[in-house]
Amino acid sequence: MEVSLTFTRTDLDFARELDAQDELASFRAEFVMTDSDVIYLDGNSLGRLPKRTAALLQRLIEWEWGERLIRGWGEGWIETPTRLGAKVARLVGAQPDEIIVTEATSTNLFKLAVAALKARPQRAKIVSDVLNFPSDLYILQGIIDLLGNRRRLELVPSTDSVTISLEALNAAIDQETALVCLTHVTFKSAFKHDMAAITARAHQEGALTLWDLSHSVGAVPVDLNGCGVDLAVGCTYKYLNGGPGAPAFLYVRRDLQTQLRQPIWGWLSARTPFAFDLDYTPAEDIARYQVGTPPILSMRAVEPALDILLEAGIDRLRAKSVRQSEYLIFLAEQWLLPLGFTIGSPRQPERRGSHVSLRHPEGYRISQALIEAAPPAYKVIPDFREPDNIRLGIAPLYTTFDEIYRAMARIRTIVVERLYECYEVDRSGVS
Amino acid sequence: MEVSLTFTRTDLDFARELDAQDELASFRAEFVMTDSDVIYLDGNSLGRLPKRTAALLQRLIEWEWGERLIRGWGEGWIETPTRLGAKVARLVGAQPDEIIVTEATSTNLFKLAVAALKARPQRAKIVSDVLNFPSDLYILQGIIDLLGNRRRLELVPSTDSVTISLEALNAAIDQETALVCLTHVTFKSAFKHDMAAITARAHQEGALTLWDLSHSVGAVPVDLNGCGVDLAVGCTYKYLNGGPGAPAFLYVRRDLQTQLRQPIWGWLSARTPFAFDLDYTPAEDIARYQVGTPPILSMRAVEPALDILLEAGIDRLRAKSVRQSEYLIFLAEQWLLPLGFTIGSPRQPERRGSHVSLRHPEGYRISQALIEAAPPAYKVIPDFREPDNIRLGIAPLYTTFDEIYRAMARIRTIVVERLYECYEVDRSGVS
Repeated sequence: MEVSLTFTRTDLDFARELDAQDELASFRAEFVMTDSDVIYLDGNSLGRLPKRTAALLQRLIEWEWGERLIRGWGEGWIETPTRLGAKVARLVGAQPDEIIVTEATSTNLFKLAVAALKARPQRAKIVSDVLNFPSDLYILQGIIDLLGNRRRLELVPSTDSVTISLEALNAAIDQETALVCLTHVTFKSAFKHDMAAITARAHQEGALTLWDLSHSVGAVPVDLNGCGVDLAVGCTYKYLNGGPGAPAFLYVRRDLQTQLRQPIWGWLSARTPFAFDLDYTPAEDIARYQVGTPPILSMRAVEPALDILLEAGIDRLRAKSVRQSEYLIFLAEQWLLPLGFTIGSPRQPERRGSHVSLRHPEGYRISQALIEAAPPAYKVIPDFREPDNIRLGIAPLYTTFDEIYRAMARIRTIVVERLYECYEVDRSGVS
Repeated sequence: MEVSLTFTRTDLDFARELDAQDELASFRAEFVMTDSDVIYLDGNSLGRLPKRTAALLQRLIEWEWGERLIRGWGEGWIETPTRLGAKVARLVGAQPDEIIVTEATSTNLFKLAVAALKARPQRAKIVSDVLNFPSDLYILQGIIDLLGNRRRLELVPSTDSVTISLEALNAAIDQETALVCLTHVTFKSAFKHDMAAITARAHQEGALTLWDLSHSVGAVPVDLNGCGVDLAVGCTYKYLNGGPGAPAFLYVRRDLQTQLRQPIWGWLSARTPFAFDLDYTPAEDIARYQVGTPPILSMRAVEPALDILLEAGIDRLRAKSVRQSEYLIFLAEQWLLPLGFTIGSPRQPERRGSHVSLRHPEGYRISQALIEAAPPAYKVIPDFREPDNIRLGIAPLYTTFDEIYRAMARIRTIVVERLYECYEVDRSGVS
């Protein structure tokens, strides 16, 4: 269905008409809904609870743990990381045996970045950018500290704090570069890098690429194989709705799986973990990149939403996400730019992920007023990101146009009526 | 109450009398019980499900995730790793701010061993032993591969495959030793190292100590502070009943917390993670040793059983564990040694943890026959560990003398009647 990205009407009925046209609208019923006075626009930080997940977890806890106990490992637990990896692979253009669900994103980034640097011992430079998620930069800084200070991290700057110039990135990648490590969709502005162009440029210079897909997977199409990407990581608790702190995933292109070696040689990365040999022999497949015993409760919670996402289809989800983001920006332009807001995300949808940052000098206190509203006003739950970003996430499986409309109207009311003035500006407790 | 460790009667009534005298018997009602035809002697591999945990998880899933969503991080989730750490600390003789629950045991061992080696850059040697859990040895081998081959791992041998000589260990520790890394209670034989003596010896030579408490915590008293231990790790899914693959814990003695630095600089190890600075500054406390976002479902599941263990008291648990282990060995001596079994664990209780290994050339097939029995015979669930160990775990919170009696009687029957002969000797599928 061809849908327009040009909007003209600013009335609630129109939002509801858009919802009525939404071919993915029925997926909202797959999720547990919060109290009706809450508009949740933070599915890009922690996705909603799928009803199927609640049911699966009850059975997992009571039957598999409570009754089957240790036998559970032989009845599917041990295969969970690779089974889930195969499903994630379908969302990001990878082969089923190229992804495994394991550990936290930062730990996975550590493992793969060390593996990459070890494979390029003569090259000193890691290229990233200043819009990357700080944890990713910290991990790289820690690796440089660990492996010796000849290595260095070069961060490509941003001239507008929203985007990174492809030309500047390409110029930073040279024969000294071991690794290009970027987050595909940046966490504050939702700027989306050109994965194909950057990966090609890195390969031209003999560098490896490591992409963090945390803000892409489940909402933005990714084609790891098509782009020739070497390595990737990503989290499962945002658009993948895997639950708080759900285990992350990692991708290693098949031909690299035996060429590279990650440094944390836990038993589940061994070829035959249950032989209990005293000497380590690594697995020959993606299992080589896991470490210890996986946290089964948190990990199994990831699976039902993967099925739901695959049913919806990533292309349809992206089309809805773009339409909703454009609608949000349209309302912001009508209502909020005159009140001192700026759009902290790229204006062109093809350069943007699935959230939109609205910037305002009082962004922190406006966020507080949104979150803490009491009836009859409804709460709106965004993220706040320093220094002035109100980050609004579009989770196309369940976000409605009606919610976007009411959230934007609510922001307008808070600023027009200065309802934020009763909140402290002190941010020491921000989390 | 003074209880005897000398047994004379081999009848089931006597076992039931021992249960009637058990002052911890009421704790069994805290746990979900399996079908009555299953005798579970594998709580040292995966502990039973506490009823309180099932209730907590239901609320966590439906209310905290389903309704509170991202707000959960501000309502207790973020403090979970340190709050649980403080409870684990009470079980192992540490201060509340010296332990944090995080990641897998192997990953924690990697972080702390690297931190220790970085603190002893002039020393080449790591001392461990051949009875250590292979994953721990693999981690150390991986670190040596990562940091350069001047470093080496020296494994103290075992003359009887059950114990490690303290004299041999002490002799291996010298001025070249950076780190002594041992599992307090070894995974096959349950041999218990002399933590105080070995730690003192290591310190005498200027080495650091890193103890794996996976097979001790919750069943064997540990006094980390009293022994002056530097570093420790351990898992929570065995005697701590935290659930399949539940997150592990790590200990860093308070005065070392700012002296050492672990290599995986994830954001939750930073001083102010939510400031999103581009440059890493480590936390000044135990948080420095965590990495990424914790898996909340699996982690929260750890807490109820910690409360139950603290209510029971580690000294009472140990007394019951010793009494039950001695009873098990008494029955083995009466019934199984004449059938070709040997005791694969130290005979003195003070040198043993809370499981007992029984060795038999047909150990693998006997284990299969135990696990796969059908009514009217009852199943017994042990672990099998190569090459011939049937590992029987005493979990003093819920194991009964009746269960031990019937398990030993069942092993006898299987061997006397050769019920194991219908099972394959092929072990390729062993897990």
